[in-house]
Amino acid sequence: MSDMVRLTLEEVHNIATENLLHYGASAEQARAVADIVTAAERDECKSHGLFRIPGFCASLKSGKVTGNAVPEINDLAPSVVHVDAANGFAPLALEAGATPLAEKARANGIAALAVTNSYHFSALWPEVERLTNDGLVAFAFVSAKSFVAPAGGTKPLFGTNPMSFGWPRSVLPAVIFDQASSASARGEIQIHERDGLQIPDGWAIDANGNPTNDPSSALAGAQLPFGGYKGSAIAMMVELLAGALIGDVFSFEASRDDKPDGGPSSGGEFMIAIDPVACGNTHALAHAESLFEQIIEQEGTRLPSERRYRARQHTVEAGVEIVPSLYRELQIS
Amino acid sequence: MSDMVRLTLEEVHNIATENLLHYGASAEQARAVADIVTAAERDECKSHGLFRIPGFCASLKSGKVTGNAVPEINDLAPSVVHVDAANGFAPLALEAGATPLAEKARANGIAALAVTNSYHFSALWPEVERLTNDGLVAFAFVSAKSFVAPAGGTKPLFGTNPMSFGWPRSVLPAVIFDQASSASARGEIQIHERDGLQIPDGWAIDANGNPTNDPSSALAGAQLPFGGYKGSAIAMMVELLAGALIGDVFSFEASRDDKPDGGPSSGGEFMIAIDPVACGNTHALAHAESLFEQIIEQEGTRLPSERRYRARQHTVEAGVEIVPSLYRELQIS
Repeated sequence: MSDMVRLTLEEVHNIATENLLHYGASAEQARAVADIVTAAERDECKSHGLFRIPGFCASLKSGKVTGNAVPEINDLAPSVVHVDAANGFAPLALEAGATPLAEKARANGIAALAVTNSYHFSALWPEVERLTNDGLVAFAFVSAKSFVAPAGGTKPLFGTNPMSFGWPRSVLPAVIFDQASSASARGEIQIHERDGLQIPDGWAIDANGNPTNDPSSALAGAQLPFGGYKGSAIAMMVELLAGALIGDVFSFEASRDDKPDGGPSSGGEFMIAIDPVACGNTHALAHAESLFEQIIEQEGTRLPSERRYRARQHTVEAGVEIVPSLYRELQIS
Repeated sequence: MSDMVRLTLEEVHNIATENLLHYGASAEQARAVADIVTAAERDECKSHGLFRIPGFCASLKSGKVTGNAVPEINDLAPSVVHVDAANGFAPLALEAGATPLAEKARANGIAALAVTNSYHFSALWPEVERLTNDGLVAFAFVSAKSFVAPAGGTKPLFGTNPMSFGWPRSVLPAVIFDQASSASARGEIQIHERDGLQIPDGWAIDANGNPTNDPSSALAGAQLPFGGYKGSAIAMMVELLAGALIGDVFSFEASRDDKPDGGPSSGGEFMIAIDPVACGNTHALAHAESLFEQIIEQEGTRLPSERRYRARQHTVEAGVEIVPSLYRELQIS
């Protein structure tokens, strides 16, 4: 892999920003997306890194996403803040909502953030980590296009519907998981297809509803929820929270209404933040450490975010590597 | 099974109440537990029905649980209420917290309930259904004794740690799931052992950490989380919410400190309630119905609570059947 292109994180950020600006994003929208993409590269979550920029740009080029959208904050209730992303990308709207969400959580103990009318094309841990770094417990839920069959069913209905949960620590970084409610990420199936490999049992069914190990049949059929009916229940919960509860679309509606430009589809995101101190417990973080110790004491286990944080330790100095084809694609002519 | 004992739901309630009173429960504690046990029998969730009464009584007999405990309500924050169960059973404490929780959710959009110092020996859907019947979206989380190994590990650490989520409907009953974060309920392994059957792959490992299909080896070893590392992450989340966040114990601490009398161990429960209307969305329930339609339209699927509600339709008239050995055990001499 000696032909990989090595970039500093600053260069990653610049490339992302320039591309987004080129296709009409405002400086603020571009900066917010570039921050998230750079954080993903920093943590070696390549599938949410620069790899996503062509999709972000495609949705600007097609006119689907409003590049200069200005998120609008609405105070819905003492413990609920709403941000209308105004048809823009999610990151800037999530940034706009973070401070009022944290303030409400601190004032009232628990609070929620509803982001609607947004285009989400990233992982969830960045918005969760922003809150955990502020000492709050946080959840995030987002739905997407229909790719996953409900347990027992045969046709795509749910999105891959990730759910993220984060717990703050006195010594950062926080413990965060961010996991799809599908058995695998869609990208993993696409990578198996590209590389001519079979996919494992339990990931997908074909268009006739039969189990398949062929990635192309899987992509034409439906992905399966993780853990059978239990993962399916979680996928349904994510649809309800990020869709019906906050007045945004379900995955099947997003798929139906989407312009297939290779970019994200429109949807909502729901977050919850809790302040352990306002919940009356000043020992919560210290107590949690005893659980984390018990987990990692067992050989073969790890805390959910460990791999990401290990990557972070060296990429900040060493930079990251991206494939030459992607680097060329991101050169603005 | 012609020797089964048929009881009306009123008789179920009376038997439960008399037993609890006999072992020193106050009228209110006995009534609250009997309500939950009767609801489980009504819904043909036998493992949480009269079957649990000997365990409830054992924990009164051993002096572990305070039979006449009076739950104490503390207003912790504008959106957080705490109920100290005062070393009593959870149902009365959950009842005490339900009204302030609902009031706070309606006033502020979202609210939380922390129940501590309680003995939980029931399913979670009864407390969730109480809130959904009141038009609220609700979550509940509870941990228990250490039975489940973290993903990759070999020794019991997490409880079977159920999580419940409920969505209200204009026409009741609500859609509710209540699922363990272990691959199977512990009781299912015990039933396989009793009946001399092998357990399926993926349920458990033996005391050496090797996969096992033998129920006795499984009970001596560790249960596995559902869906691998994703279910394990959810089990961890439940520990943090029902333990560290609210100032109660983790499963491993509950196991360590428990008096092994066959009854429940001490622990906490965490609930969240959300008012869709206060979140600014008066169409939430109608919109959700379109998702439910899409789910059940697919042959082979069902909504999470369907089986329970079907049972309810006939047991209210026809009563329930219990095994003679249990019936005899519950006769107060």
